[in-house]
Amino acid sequence: MSALRFPNLPPSEPQGADLLAQERANTTFSIHEVSAFLYGEVYLERQERLLSVIENEPAFDKSNRYFRGRTERFAAALRKDHALVKLSKELQWSPEEYLQAESLIDEAGPFGLHRGMFMPTLASQSTNEQLEKFLKPAQRYEIIGCYAQTELGHGSNVQGIETTATYIPETNQFELHTPYLTASKWWIGGLGKAANHAVVMARLITNGKDYGPHALCVPIRSMEDHTLLPGVMAGDIGPKFGYNTTDNGCMWFDHYRVPHISLLAKYSSVKPGSGEYVKPPNAKLSYGTMVLVRASLVGAARQGMAKAATIATRYSAIRRQFVDKDSPKMLGKDVIETPVLDYSMQQYRLFPIIAAAYACFFTSKDMMRLYHLNMKNMETGDFSLLADVHASSSGLKSLTTTMAASAIEECRRACGGHAPNVTWEGDNYMITQQTGRYLFKSFRELVAKRASGKFSASQINNPTLAYMNTYLENPTLKCPATSASAFHNPELQLAAFGHRASSMVAQIVHALDVEKRTWNSMLVDIYNVSVAHCQLILVQNFILGIRGEMPQPDGIQPTVISAASKEALTDLSDLFAMHTIHKQPGEFLTSGYLDAKQISLLGEAIMDVMEKKVRPNAIGFVDAFAFPDYLLNSAIGAFDGRAYERYTEMATREPLNRTEVVEGYEQYIRPFTNPMGLKGHTLRARI
Amino acid sequence: MSALRFPNLPPSEPQGADLLAQERANTTFSIHEVSAFLYGEVYLERQERLLSVIENEPAFDKSNRYFRGRTERFAAALRKDHALVKLSKELQWSPEEYLQAESLIDEAGPFGLHRGMFMPTLASQSTNEQLEKFLKPAQRYEIIGCYAQTELGHGSNVQGIETTATYIPETNQFELHTPYLTASKWWIGGLGKAANHAVVMARLITNGKDYGPHALCVPIRSMEDHTLLPGVMAGDIGPKFGYNTTDNGCMWFDHYRVPHISLLAKYSSVKPGSGEYVKPPNAKLSYGTMVLVRASLVGAARQGMAKAATIATRYSAIRRQFVDKDSPKMLGKDVIETPVLDYSMQQYRLFPIIAAAYACFFTSKDMMRLYHLNMKNMETGDFSLLADVHASSSGLKSLTTTMAASAIEECRRACGGHAPNVTWEGDNYMITQQTGRYLFKSFRELVAKRASGKFSASQINNPTLAYMNTYLENPTLKCPATSASAFHNPELQLAAFGHRASSMVAQIVHALDVEKRTWNSMLVDIYNVSVAHCQLILVQNFILGIRGEMPQPDGIQPTVISAASKEALTDLSDLFAMHTIHKQPGEFLTSGYLDAKQISLLGEAIMDVMEKKVRPNAIGFVDAFAFPDYLLNSAIGAFDGRAYERYTEMATREPLNRTEVVEGYEQYIRPFTNPMGLKGHTLRARI
Repeated sequence: MSALRFPNLPPSEPQGADLLAQERANTTFSIHEVSAFLYGEVYLERQERLLSVIENEPAFDKSNRYFRGRTERFAAALRKDHALVKLSKELQWSPEEYLQAESLIDEAGPFGLHRGMFMPTLASQSTNEQLEKFLKPAQRYEIIGCYAQTELGHGSNVQGIETTATYIPETNQFELHTPYLTASKWWIGGLGKAANHAVVMARLITNGKDYGPHALCVPIRSMEDHTLLPGVMAGDIGPKFGYNTTDNGCMWFDHYRVPHISLLAKYSSVKPGSGEYVKPPNAKLSYGTMVLVRASLVGAARQGMAKAATIATRYSAIRRQFVDKDSPKMLGKDVIETPVLDYSMQQYRLFPIIAAAYACFFTSKDMMRLYHLNMKNMETGDFSLLADVHASSSGLKSLTTTMAASAIEECRRACGGHAPNVTWEGDNYMITQQTGRYLFKSFRELVAKRASGKFSASQINNPTLAYMNTYLENPTLKCPATSASAFHNPELQLAAFGHRASSMVAQIVHALDVEKRTWNSMLVDIYNVSVAHCQLILVQNFILGIRGEMPQPDGIQPTVISAASKEALTDLSDLFAMHTIHKQPGEFLTSGYLDAKQISLLGEAIMDVMEKKVRPNAIGFVDAFAFPDYLLNSAIGAFDGRAYERYTEMATREPLNRTEVVEGYEQYIRPFTNPMGLKGHTLRARI
Repeated sequence: MSALRFPNLPPSEPQGADLLAQERANTTFSIHEVSAFLYGEVYLERQERLLSVIENEPAFDKSNRYFRGRTERFAAALRKDHALVKLSKELQWSPEEYLQAESLIDEAGPFGLHRGMFMPTLASQSTNEQLEKFLKPAQRYEIIGCYAQTELGHGSNVQGIETTATYIPETNQFELHTPYLTASKWWIGGLGKAANHAVVMARLITNGKDYGPHALCVPIRSMEDHTLLPGVMAGDIGPKFGYNTTDNGCMWFDHYRVPHISLLAKYSSVKPGSGEYVKPPNAKLSYGTMVLVRASLVGAARQGMAKAATIATRYSAIRRQFVDKDSPKMLGKDVIETPVLDYSMQQYRLFPIIAAAYACFFTSKDMMRLYHLNMKNMETGDFSLLADVHASSSGLKSLTTTMAASAIEECRRACGGHAPNVTWEGDNYMITQQTGRYLFKSFRELVAKRASGKFSASQINNPTLAYMNTYLENPTLKCPATSASAFHNPELQLAAFGHRASSMVAQIVHALDVEKRTWNSMLVDIYNVSVAHCQLILVQNFILGIRGEMPQPDGIQPTVISAASKEALTDLSDLFAMHTIHKQPGEFLTSGYLDAKQISLLGEAIMDVMEKKVRPNAIGFVDAFAFPDYLLNSAIGAFDGRAYERYTEMATREPLNRTEVVEGYEQYIRPFTNPMGLKGHTLRARI
């Protein structure tokens, strides 16, 4: 019960529901068709079916989520994860159904890393015996695990971790030990409170020699009563920004002995007794899972951007502010305030984000295809795709999560501070060096081939080499555009991105190889070149995706869409490409491809496409993301447009409103305002 | 008591304290001298004195701040505000002392808006009778107030608010009423739970005519027992991002009558009985306080950036990761990991933020001087400064808080996710239109004057006209720089910023006046021109501030600093100017002043000044901000460099660690892991 009640009055006219209905009526394409183009009918039907189950389960209720402190949020998340596993067993959900349900509930929980990292690691690095012993009970949730790699003093640099696992031949055991405070395991999801097992990355030492980081699967809490096992200390690391429903934990070992079978031994192992080290056949084999994690982060970034864009765009169509004197809005005979979505500044903030969310969709899809293709190739000993996929996935993870973080924050601010917030963790700079390294290597090889006299363009079998080769054919090429409309041309857009990325690669390679600059002194340029390369990928996949020309996984037919939808989506892909150039034109200018006058034309083209093409379809574009209200959990961004009604209703659920007079009044307010405890409304009640 | 204990082990070598000591020994200037240059000795001594009191008051303890949920945080903030008022009365603090103490405690509380908005509004808009009746008891905290302007449906556009205050001649009262749900007062700090009075902005209606928004001071809660008065409904709006210690509230009125004296009547009033409206002598008189609020936000933005920079820079000197193979670090004979502060990418992320925090300092100082000067002028009827000050403060509020928000977030990410977070609220786009409008008006007037034939440059008495005039003298001027070192030249930097801002103004004025483009279609350009103008102000004040050439308030002597400090600070101002250009070079290029080759040279100059000049002084620069550990409340950014020790100690205070086995184990984990409740460590304890 709340002491706060709102008046039984409607918002002033026009009503949000009417405004959104009008927006939807103006949409030039079929919203459902575009949703189906993105996700497929199967996905959309499954979403309906899962929702009907999930929305009726009290453990998945979101209505009090924003009001809870960390302790209560964690307790609720533990209950939620329990219910999710239980339900998935009862209803015999497939892995797809489980993932889709999890994404609808949309809250990280203490069992998340068990499924996301612990089990996949066991699956890829266990012997058959270990699969039986660890993975099978883990699938039944008898074993609940976590993935303990990061240490207090070591994050990105896995090779620097300090925890040791020393082989003891006498007892055929490994002894895990934490030699320094900095070697404490840190930031490990699920470790703080929930897990009873951990995959621990530790330096393997046998016969006095250090073989670097290896994975061991070890029990950490008693299966009887969940207490910590002797030799293990663990707990929660405390509150984290945007991730407080997970028990990210810390752990240290005091000469903790585990049996020989703990060392995950599919690729490398230690011979019992002799302690002889058996090295893995190919060090690259473990790269595959990293690509998977990064590729799936591109999808998560898209999801975050699309959710924020949905909320901010719907609210901007409802929220009205000031009267645009050049073109006032009318309601009957009255001038009313203009919806903020009609202001060009608001369009410039939000429409590129809608466009980016679509752009990331196509690339996320293609990264998953490439991951699976590469895994299949590697099984047959073909490593030809690995370097390209690894470089792209690293750069794209960095670029798209950075895009998402700033897009979500921009959407929040575009709602005047009313929107919920999401933050994406992790360092996005370190990782781009891998992309840079690959680009420089490709470029050097291409230059050498071209110089060898034995080169023909038909040898090029990779999109990176293709755009670099185009550049090398004519490094001083200029963009031919002389009008704003000329930029509505995918080939021209791709040429601009390709020329810019290539010229940056050429410059850096020159600085490294000829000027002998150090790698460290070039880190800023390397970060920028990774961004340039990945923006090209995003633009390219967006264009091909709309055309239905993206490569498809074997046996899958591309979805075909109507001309109206294709045209509308092409407006968005134009906006994405043009806005990406216009926002940071420096490198396009210094590459020589574009000139200052063209940047100005591009600005005109952007304002034009936003006003005439994207504005009428803005609500349609976000509706097509097909996020149910349950997923968005937003008062101001719900489908029905009743923003103010939902927002006020939400305030009545604030725990501070349970009582009319605040707890603490007697102690902290009355001593100032009524120190003598005088009675009578006359006191100063009415002046 | 915590169930989590850490091993009695040091971090691995080298220790953070030793690394920071070495950094400080390498600093080329006196840290204390620069602190005193920024704040003055009086401020620094007062800080020491206040700290010794504050750190010993339990209500101001910060150690559990990050662990509390909203309800507990609000309770603690109420206790804190109570203790602060009580202490300030006992120790008879001056307003400066109170503000400085509040800034050390650094947490918004329920009484904050009473002091920040309620009392200042009363002070500036009350008659003498109202000062006695409202302001005096407010100063004693008998009246605790809030400022109720924003409504659920109306933020930036004050003219659009819907709450009415209708004069009732029969009883000589005003009747406050909420006609629509959208007219509910919303987002009002202190209203939710703490305030017993409110300044309410409502449309004044008398004799059937609507005179627009006016301020009334009205009681809302009983002085006897704090219950809501009949006709008033109020409560808290719920959790907010980064502001959960304040009871931002909502309120609606049901035909609520208040006496005639409630209407704050210094400038405009309603005659008792006849209800005749008396209009204010000059509508501009209320602008002064808005300038004050905006100018003080520039200071708050600087404070936020400086705090984040302090934490991130210290931690980056301690945090080591990977080995830089081109220049490996040694500890005795061992190669150790390189401190991340030595990587050029980390420098590119952090050093411009240090520079920006210094840049904002000088401008914040000058805005306060201009505010006071303008207030003094206005009292004598001189409004000549008002437009310039109002335009600059609007644009600077927008620019510097946006800079701060992204700088703080960048610092947080640069710590690998370990740093605390701050977000700045409010829309930063709307407000810049005021800056644009002023720039266009100034430009048009200047062009007209120059065309009149009666113009001489000596007539120019205002910095905005000065840079625009320089541009008009030669709109096709080119930057003469041909080497990286040429950019280490303040005059050249100022010329670049002035040319760029002027050429943008000229273009927009042309679009509006000649091409007849609509205001709405130009909003993006208007936002950008406000940024350009305000960046010029920041660069200019930074340069003049270091030189001791900033205009001073009457009777105040500029602080003089040693050559070493001046040189070090000039490195920072070079970096700020050069990095600001280099990060977004588009407009500098399209203005024609700089060319692509020069942007490249600028990049070299930046890398050079960061590596050779700023890196050795980085810790010195942030130490000179003089933030005590109590204020920072950061495990990883404390002065002593014991980052890992403090961080682990902090984790032991996490409430989830009070018990070893998590609450909920029996209900949500054991049913999976040990459903039969089997006993014995053999169960699966040791595999």
